[in-house]
Amino acid sequence: MIYLDHAAATPMSEKAQRAMQPYLAMQFFNPSAAYLPAVEVRRQYEAAKDAIAHVIGAKGADLVMTSGATESINLAFSLVADDAAILVSAVEHPAVMENARHRSNSQVVGVDQNGRIDLGDFAQRLSPQTQFVSVCLASSELGTIQPISELSRLITAERQRRALAGEQTPLYFHCDASQGLGLMELKVARLGVDLLTINAAKVYGPKGVGALYISHRVRLQPQQLGGGQEMGLRSGTENVAGVIAFAAAVQEAARHLHAEQKRLRTLRVQLQQSLADIPNIRFLGNTKTQLPNFLTLSVAGLDAERLIFRLEDQGIYVSTGAACAASKGRKSPTLQAIGLSEAEIAGSLRLTLGRLNDAENVAAAGKLIRETIIAEQERLAQSSAR
Amino acid sequence: MIYLDHAAATPMSEKAQRAMQPYLAMQFFNPSAAYLPAVEVRRQYEAAKDAIAHVIGAKGADLVMTSGATESINLAFSLVADDAAILVSAVEHPAVMENARHRSNSQVVGVDQNGRIDLGDFAQRLSPQTQFVSVCLASSELGTIQPISELSRLITAERQRRALAGEQTPLYFHCDASQGLGLMELKVARLGVDLLTINAAKVYGPKGVGALYISHRVRLQPQQLGGGQEMGLRSGTENVAGVIAFAAAVQEAARHLHAEQKRLRTLRVQLQQSLADIPNIRFLGNTKTQLPNFLTLSVAGLDAERLIFRLEDQGIYVSTGAACAASKGRKSPTLQAIGLSEAEIAGSLRLTLGRLNDAENVAAAGKLIRETIIAEQERLAQSSAR
Repeated sequence: MIYLDHAAATPMSEKAQRAMQPYLAMQFFNPSAAYLPAVEVRRQYEAAKDAIAHVIGAKGADLVMTSGATESINLAFSLVADDAAILVSAVEHPAVMENARHRSNSQVVGVDQNGRIDLGDFAQRLSPQTQFVSVCLASSELGTIQPISELSRLITAERQRRALAGEQTPLYFHCDASQGLGLMELKVARLGVDLLTINAAKVYGPKGVGALYISHRVRLQPQQLGGGQEMGLRSGTENVAGVIAFAAAVQEAARHLHAEQKRLRTLRVQLQQSLADIPNIRFLGNTKTQLPNFLTLSVAGLDAERLIFRLEDQGIYVSTGAACAASKGRKSPTLQAIGLSEAEIAGSLRLTLGRLNDAENVAAAGKLIRETIIAEQERLAQSSAR
Repeated sequence: MIYLDHAAATPMSEKAQRAMQPYLAMQFFNPSAAYLPAVEVRRQYEAAKDAIAHVIGAKGADLVMTSGATESINLAFSLVADDAAILVSAVEHPAVMENARHRSNSQVVGVDQNGRIDLGDFAQRLSPQTQFVSVCLASSELGTIQPISELSRLITAERQRRALAGEQTPLYFHCDASQGLGLMELKVARLGVDLLTINAAKVYGPKGVGALYISHRVRLQPQQLGGGQEMGLRSGTENVAGVIAFAAAVQEAARHLHAEQKRLRTLRVQLQQSLADIPNIRFLGNTKTQLPNFLTLSVAGLDAERLIFRLEDQGIYVSTGAACAASKGRKSPTLQAIGLSEAEIAGSLRLTLGRLNDAENVAAAGKLIRETIIAEQERLAQSSAR
């Protein structure tokens, strides 16, 4: 098996699994219980939150732990009323897109051909009414890193204008960092965001665990009522083992960040070179502003769905666009937004590298993908000649 | 260590841990991906849902998997508007109570001295306007089993009356079965509920995993928007490992249900007898309508919080009321509802038995708890005599 779909899911690391283990059947206590072993579990849970927060330059008390990125994103959107003016980019994950779509007053900001948000369009759409902005750290289909700090500067300027004008309309900035955590430096102060979504499942932690970073200036209303856990914002018995595994995973990723970035960049260059001479191939995004592990490509005329099955036969697992959107057979809004034709969208593949890859299996994958695509092109050429 | 707090948390069973293991780092694929190993993960995920549903007499497609009982309960309440007329019992978990409290038109139905809902009071409060009823299968503080089928009959009669009168007001019945799953027979058809909350963490499964059973006649609105998982009702990448572990745990409990009920009942009798001669002791609830593992007691004049710490010194872990409520230092609404005095509430302990108990450690616990309570009573008598 050669796995090239790390943006869809990652295996839990050994370290994360080992960190989780004691909390399954030994230190299984309810952190809300009064006796000492439960109090100790509570302490370790809080320490895990601190460790996760530290990686993004925050404190444990700034995090609400959730069941994953989708819950975090929905919680962030709960900050403003259903008719509040909202801006999102055109390359957001369905969790952001659906939240925008279900609101009466949301606008989608355009992106350039690499999927990078158009700062001019953003500045123009950012109005005195805008209350909420949600832009991903990096697109889940292209890996394109968004200019979050620049957006933050525009937002801060608008806030200052409002303050001077005595306007009371609030303005919040949420960033979905599901793609990016563990692959790039990530500090909330430098990004200048009020809310940040992170996810364990993309960083070699467990599925079903995420967090929403919430800056001190933001006051969320509880969305899940009950026992009052997570500072009253998100009730429910804490997923102790999951959060401790998340902490182990994110710390491990942070420790090896620079080496892993370099390693992945090298593998991506290698993979790209091995595919570069395929007729009509087009690599999407600009490697200078892309996550180091993304190689999204398009070969107009090809049927990517069919290609996935042909590659699967050879033990190579790749994706078309985001797994969530792909499963519903919809055309990728991201690929439409960067101006791809229908044929280019239909012929697009997302290859995302990670810990399951090395020079050897990337070389093998490159060779097999190249051969498979060329064979498909020949088959298509023959059948159209007939 | 002698653990007598199984209603607060249970250790994951060996079987549940083993079932989960392959899905952490081997079959870690995103179930929404298109390639075969991911499709296989999706199949196994759906099979796990079927297995969980089977235990409560339902089908996998009737379940929305959640991050636990609190989310399930909040999802159930989302069925009706904030100003809808709602009935809940006086002995509900904080997740139900807080949802009722945050609504403008909710009423609390009284209970008898054993914490069993007053059917007369319920029938009286059930009005042509009532849209939602939420009653627990068993109280988390007393273990008192509620007459769910009887409530269902009253609700069905009211529905029929409305149908005949041509009234359109809907009426839904939700049951929180967090306490009870794995301890009693549980079939949605026999209970006659529209919505049922279940929870893995109370049945030797993982924390952070639950489900809401939803009958075909109910149409929920999605609360968590995104990739469209769980039939569009609850987006977010599926917690595959957690759900598969839940299935293993709940199947294991179902397999041994009758033997375990009998074993726990015997242990409870043993524990009760060893404490019975403590002066002023009062056992709460009626064993005939209680979960087999609950022994809640009160010794007026005692300080239960202090007792917990004295027992903890001896390695015995018990609780006062529900862990969630207890941690916030509030007086238990359940114990107030059954008419206990302040002194009785302050002197109440909840002992809940489970797999970590056997005749030997229950005998040891009984002896130590008895001695500790009597020593406390003597200390109090001496200090008041001085």
